[in-house]
Amino acid sequence: MTQLEMARQGTISPEMQRAAAHEGISPEQVRDLVAAGQAVIPKNINHHFDQIMAVGSFLRTKVNANIGTSGECTSIEGEIAKLQAAVDAGTDSVMDLSTGGDLQDIRREILARSPVMVGAVPIYAVATDLQRSGVGIAKMDADQLFRSIEDQCAEGLDYITVHCGVTREVLDRLKGKSRLLPCVSRGGSILMHWMRHNGKENPLYENFDALVDIAHKYDVTLSLGDGFRPGSVVDATDGPQLQELILLGELARRARAKGVQVIIEGPGHVPLNQVVANVQLEKQLCDGAPFYLLGPLTTDIAPGYDHITAAIGGAIAAAAGADFLCYVTPAEHLAIPDKDDVHVGVIAARIAAHSADIAKGIPGALERDRLMSCHRRDLNWDGMVALSIDPETTRKRLQISHNQETCTMCGELCAVKLARG
Amino acid sequence: MTQLEMARQGTISPEMQRAAAHEGISPEQVRDLVAAGQAVIPKNINHHFDQIMAVGSFLRTKVNANIGTSGECTSIEGEIAKLQAAVDAGTDSVMDLSTGGDLQDIRREILARSPVMVGAVPIYAVATDLQRSGVGIAKMDADQLFRSIEDQCAEGLDYITVHCGVTREVLDRLKGKSRLLPCVSRGGSILMHWMRHNGKENPLYENFDALVDIAHKYDVTLSLGDGFRPGSVVDATDGPQLQELILLGELARRARAKGVQVIIEGPGHVPLNQVVANVQLEKQLCDGAPFYLLGPLTTDIAPGYDHITAAIGGAIAAAAGADFLCYVTPAEHLAIPDKDDVHVGVIAARIAAHSADIAKGIPGALERDRLMSCHRRDLNWDGMVALSIDPETTRKRLQISHNQETCTMCGELCAVKLARG
Repeated sequence: MTQLEMARQGTISPEMQRAAAHEGISPEQVRDLVAAGQAVIPKNINHHFDQIMAVGSFLRTKVNANIGTSGECTSIEGEIAKLQAAVDAGTDSVMDLSTGGDLQDIRREILARSPVMVGAVPIYAVATDLQRSGVGIAKMDADQLFRSIEDQCAEGLDYITVHCGVTREVLDRLKGKSRLLPCVSRGGSILMHWMRHNGKENPLYENFDALVDIAHKYDVTLSLGDGFRPGSVVDATDGPQLQELILLGELARRARAKGVQVIIEGPGHVPLNQVVANVQLEKQLCDGAPFYLLGPLTTDIAPGYDHITAAIGGAIAAAAGADFLCYVTPAEHLAIPDKDDVHVGVIAARIAAHSADIAKGIPGALERDRLMSCHRRDLNWDGMVALSIDPETTRKRLQISHNQETCTMCGELCAVKLARG
Repeated sequence: MTQLEMARQGTISPEMQRAAAHEGISPEQVRDLVAAGQAVIPKNINHHFDQIMAVGSFLRTKVNANIGTSGECTSIEGEIAKLQAAVDAGTDSVMDLSTGGDLQDIRREILARSPVMVGAVPIYAVATDLQRSGVGIAKMDADQLFRSIEDQCAEGLDYITVHCGVTREVLDRLKGKSRLLPCVSRGGSILMHWMRHNGKENPLYENFDALVDIAHKYDVTLSLGDGFRPGSVVDATDGPQLQELILLGELARRARAKGVQVIIEGPGHVPLNQVVANVQLEKQLCDGAPFYLLGPLTTDIAPGYDHITAAIGGAIAAAAGADFLCYVTPAEHLAIPDKDDVHVGVIAARIAAHSADIAKGIPGALERDRLMSCHRRDLNWDGMVALSIDPETTRKRLQISHNQETCTMCGELCAVKLARG
């Protein structure tokens, strides 16, 4: 039985207990959220890892770090270092998005070493093989795709992104609209390319039940991808995007009816004043399913700093009810991230998530800020370092004044000191 | 006559023309906003600089960079380098907050070299002198304070922060409330310390008319400081903060009645879900006066990354109507910033400001994003670099694939390329 089926039966699984302990809430509450589809516990029956967590409403906002090779950056060691950097920075999840080197080796290595849930986009492996062998993506075979998905699920992936909403209907809708960037999703564009060349419907949509059966077998959470997420703030919240979201809501109901846990993926690039609406639409159209956002970036003009732009959009989205933030690193739009990018990407996403958790009133969130502020009041620098989101960076940047009491920002003219009397 | 007096008369000054040209709007619109007190043009009659701008409603959100020495970091060259870094990164304003070295020399040097408006907190100079000479801040003389303010205004400061709202009434209100951090404003804490030791009212409040007369003489914009801005998200939007804001609204009316331009300063540390309310309260209580925010930081736990936390709060605030964002650098709460901190601080604040300008519908804001997205669609890397908020960083981080077409993030599996056909 899947976590969803157990929850519906009223059973509290060991995974629910661990997820509840992590949140500091009751296992019953986790069970009820999972049963209602408002939370998921991504945990493949074949994957064993320490930090089992639930993702969803009323829970701490979770953070994912995308790692993985690309065509020209194929080192397994490099990816293990990124995994470690992401975990050290406090990520709640990693996704292996590799498209270079020995994909299976890399995936297995990450699954074996990760203390947190692991997700992937299975179509990347199929597309990479086809491209490498010179056959081309247009020749992809639907059976081959499903076989690869099953193989990858059997290896232990806790959740998979599947772009089931890239359908003919949405492609038609796209024609009637002059989008600046028709498709910026890698998985979505692979399917779009295949559909155009073959004049066929997306097999992940057409054979959705087969996909659900695979997911059910291993209790893999389906993360329904947004192939038509906007790639520019100018394209945000348009017909193709919302058409796909409507479909994802329908598919979510079908998956849950068969006992499979579902997450919905969301944009992308969204103007600040449309972020809240995007979250509300997802919650409404998908019956409160957990919402997993990439960004959103509130402007397109800041490559090199997209972790900051994503923190702005992510914080607003999460405060409005988004549950899961995929980090964006400073390398986004420019290069494959290195491990320093991974580190700062996770920290930026955690700042956004924590800011949102304070706003949402997640139990315990504000307590850490209260304690930090007590240390500030007391000029307790060791306390501040230890409690900060990145103690190593804080320690490195701290410059204590000659007076051994205040920092070099204000020196003797320290407001905290002066306010004492 | 001050800009406010000219605007009320219906006169369009050369400064209004330059500010309008900068915004791409009509001089009449700038004039009307200034006349209504919804915008200010900080421009001392004794200061000559290139980039004369208006700050306020319906205008591009402006960014300020705080620079200046402290007790242990006293180099003029260092501050000139920070000024240059701030200007190169696109700041709209600098404040000289020096409290170390020869304060007058530093201020004059910055005033002479800055192409943008220059602000300061005049009480720092008085407090620094008293502390250096061993006399102590408690012995500050009100006449001495006013003389120093006049001297500094005569030198050419375009706007000055004056903590006129640190009054006995607010101090009393503070007693009835257990704030974690009673006062984190340097200027505010200097006055609080003085008032407690002397049992007297704040001279900047008691003799507010004298202050207004000085500001009028040189057309210095008064930036009414928030001495009781929260220093922790736990303390936000409380009685002392709002009591002071009510007073600032009253003082703003008195200043404007005498033809003096006014800005209101705001927090600080504010939970994400209280940011919009803080902007609305300021606009309501202060008759739409421009709102100048330090942050706000939406969590206290991220020293080393407070530029990111401030970008979250600043973007939300500016989208809700805040007009002027004071940057926060990665050094905040830890040390005096260096020039790299200044650079990244300005960039982060500009990302927040621009994200807000898109949301507010400021004319032209979205156009830059549209153009950037066209370059992305066309895989025009030179175009992307040139149009990005920090071209040098973008150029440095960009890694083009061996195919000479895509970046190393996706290589051959580039969604933009695949979506073409």
